[in-house]
Amino acid sequence: MVSVNEAFQIIQSVSCPVGTEALSIADSVGHILAEPVVADRDFPPFNRVAMDGIAISSKSFQAGQREYEIEAIQPAGQPGIKLHDSQKCVEVMTGAMLPEGTDVVIRYEDIELKGNTALVKISEVKKGMNIHPQAQDAKTGEALLKPGQRISPAEVALLAAVGKASVQVYLFPKAAIVSSGNELVELNVVPQRHQLRRSNVYALFAAMQEVGWGAEFFHLHDSESEIETVLADLLKQFNVLILSGGVSKGKFDFIPQALAAVGVERKFHQVSQRPGKPFWFGTGSDGKVVFALPGNPVSTYVCYYRYILPWMMEQMGVVLKPEQAILTEDVTFTPQLTYFLQVSTFFKEGKRMARPVPGGGSGDFVNLKEVDGFIELPAEKSLFKSGEAYPYIGFRHL
Amino acid sequence: MVSVNEAFQIIQSVSCPVGTEALSIADSVGHILAEPVVADRDFPPFNRVAMDGIAISSKSFQAGQREYEIEAIQPAGQPGIKLHDSQKCVEVMTGAMLPEGTDVVIRYEDIELKGNTALVKISEVKKGMNIHPQAQDAKTGEALLKPGQRISPAEVALLAAVGKASVQVYLFPKAAIVSSGNELVELNVVPQRHQLRRSNVYALFAAMQEVGWGAEFFHLHDSESEIETVLADLLKQFNVLILSGGVSKGKFDFIPQALAAVGVERKFHQVSQRPGKPFWFGTGSDGKVVFALPGNPVSTYVCYYRYILPWMMEQMGVVLKPEQAILTEDVTFTPQLTYFLQVSTFFKEGKRMARPVPGGGSGDFVNLKEVDGFIELPAEKSLFKSGEAYPYIGFRHL
Repeated sequence: MVSVNEAFQIIQSVSCPVGTEALSIADSVGHILAEPVVADRDFPPFNRVAMDGIAISSKSFQAGQREYEIEAIQPAGQPGIKLHDSQKCVEVMTGAMLPEGTDVVIRYEDIELKGNTALVKISEVKKGMNIHPQAQDAKTGEALLKPGQRISPAEVALLAAVGKASVQVYLFPKAAIVSSGNELVELNVVPQRHQLRRSNVYALFAAMQEVGWGAEFFHLHDSESEIETVLADLLKQFNVLILSGGVSKGKFDFIPQALAAVGVERKFHQVSQRPGKPFWFGTGSDGKVVFALPGNPVSTYVCYYRYILPWMMEQMGVVLKPEQAILTEDVTFTPQLTYFLQVSTFFKEGKRMARPVPGGGSGDFVNLKEVDGFIELPAEKSLFKSGEAYPYIGFRHL
Repeated sequence: MVSVNEAFQIIQSVSCPVGTEALSIADSVGHILAEPVVADRDFPPFNRVAMDGIAISSKSFQAGQREYEIEAIQPAGQPGIKLHDSQKCVEVMTGAMLPEGTDVVIRYEDIELKGNTALVKISEVKKGMNIHPQAQDAKTGEALLKPGQRISPAEVALLAAVGKASVQVYLFPKAAIVSSGNELVELNVVPQRHQLRRSNVYALFAAMQEVGWGAEFFHLHDSESEIETVLADLLKQFNVLILSGGVSKGKFDFIPQALAAVGVERKFHQVSQRPGKPFWFGTGSDGKVVFALPGNPVSTYVCYYRYILPWMMEQMGVVLKPEQAILTEDVTFTPQLTYFLQVSTFFKEGKRMARPVPGGGSGDFVNLKEVDGFIELPAEKSLFKSGEAYPYIGFRHL
């Protein structure tokens, strides 16, 4: 048995090669960037007018001038013009190039227009006022984004701005989700009383889908020979196997032996945690990685978010920020195990508060509908007090 | 000019009919549930063995018995059997039906097996121990999920468990994203010095995509007649128009007049906020809704997350939980406007801390790559102190 931190370290030390693929920018959100992105021009590419109004030379204003004849108009989207007479002004639009010979923009709100003349109503101007100067945000050649960045809408804007209609993102390794247990039936089957519909694997699939990771489903019956044959075959086809069930101490929990038989080296079996204690992890030849999770739905869930997702993100260079939540009530948990407590969360004055959700244990997935995530209570303590902060793993977005 | 709260209320009071569609469970994650989901059986459907071990009758144990002959084995996935001799036991596997005549499960860890006999090593047992009782999590007919629930992997598990291979989700209204401004060129064009690549609309598209909302792109040149014709046409084809640009005070900002001309009723123009002050909102006949956002990238972004997304979610019955973040330093902002401050966030002992990100103003989208979201600083104050909590809108998930 290993501790949660040992299990995490062992998993993180295993690497799995990830490929890359080109995606259209319109499909890229949520994926992980696999190439550096560089400014192909200055941003802004010119001294950019930031307000609608007039552009003048600050020298004339400093000399006391307040009335300006409009010499020309500079709209956005047209080549920059020049102010010929420094005693006059150019009417300018937001997004336009600042006319040569001007260094101040005065907003319409601060002038009065009389025919072709603008009367300035403010008594002070600052050089550069209402101008977004060339290259202020980025210089040509400057690194804008690094590989390992998750592409949010903000990064999409950047990619578009530098003209990347197509972008390299990381390709997730080929993964199989493998359920096991004779009690499970297909979703479209009306189960007999002793049977359950497969549900774990769909949750796992959905969680992977949320980061753009696809997977195929398989099922193993509780037969030693079938399990070996199928696992051997899956190891040929897939890089990552995520198994659910069959790793406890039960008479029909053949998975650990079968994995050994097909050449997967055990890195650990059992983690001192609840739920998810029977978690088995191993590696095969050629960089194959096998996560064999306990079959209880909540265990599967905890193990995916605590170990598999951070590991996958690490392969792509994503740095996850640690988060915490604050207990709203005392919790006692005496076994010498790390306890992943199911909580419902809310914000209160900037603090993420975590209210324990009572439930039927690791087999109770009905309960998860009230749950936003887990807080991780360390094995060394048994009393966890209201107001204390602990690491938090959330699985709801929005 | 209206306040941020007035703008929000006006928008929320406008309703837009949303349809529904059936999705395969495998495609449902991230969508909004449009039907109630009910337990089609008890969960668990039977008294479920929660640990591998033996099942006994607690009466025999209470009478002092510690040695139990194994009468039978009860694997998971097989019809429930019965313990015939109450002095014996049944070997049981996790997930199996609890044998009739037993009411306690003792784990393998707590027994010693000698041939066909189990010797119990613990001195106390509680009725129901290591048993997940029938219907503890949900009873047949019980409401499990309500419409308006965003489907996370946890809900996917529930849907699978009740056999919903296909599920009704809300269908987003048909939306057009409409950029404007002669300075904008297509992504695959090398812009001339006075031109910019369209980037706003891609960010908007990506943000909508993250909640499953599709959109089509259009562009308007700065021509009054073209704008009117195109808008009239778009109003026929789409339910929601999101325009970017052309609503400021500039000479070529024809959008508000054009919208009036094609029969869209203005609900407000200008919100006392920065960025995003020129925001225009109106409604057409037949439930058409028009958001005309300022063209600055950061303004577009703020308006989408502050107004459009919550409005859309409201149409589908989604209740968003308010969040806050805590300033890491003093901020001064004197204009009488609500200030959406760009921040980078991190967690510290359960508190979400918000560090202001200095930047080039509303036109600076390069900067957004460092930003996780916005905090909303109210118009009534001008000094916002380190340690104070303010409403937070985040746009990064993971």
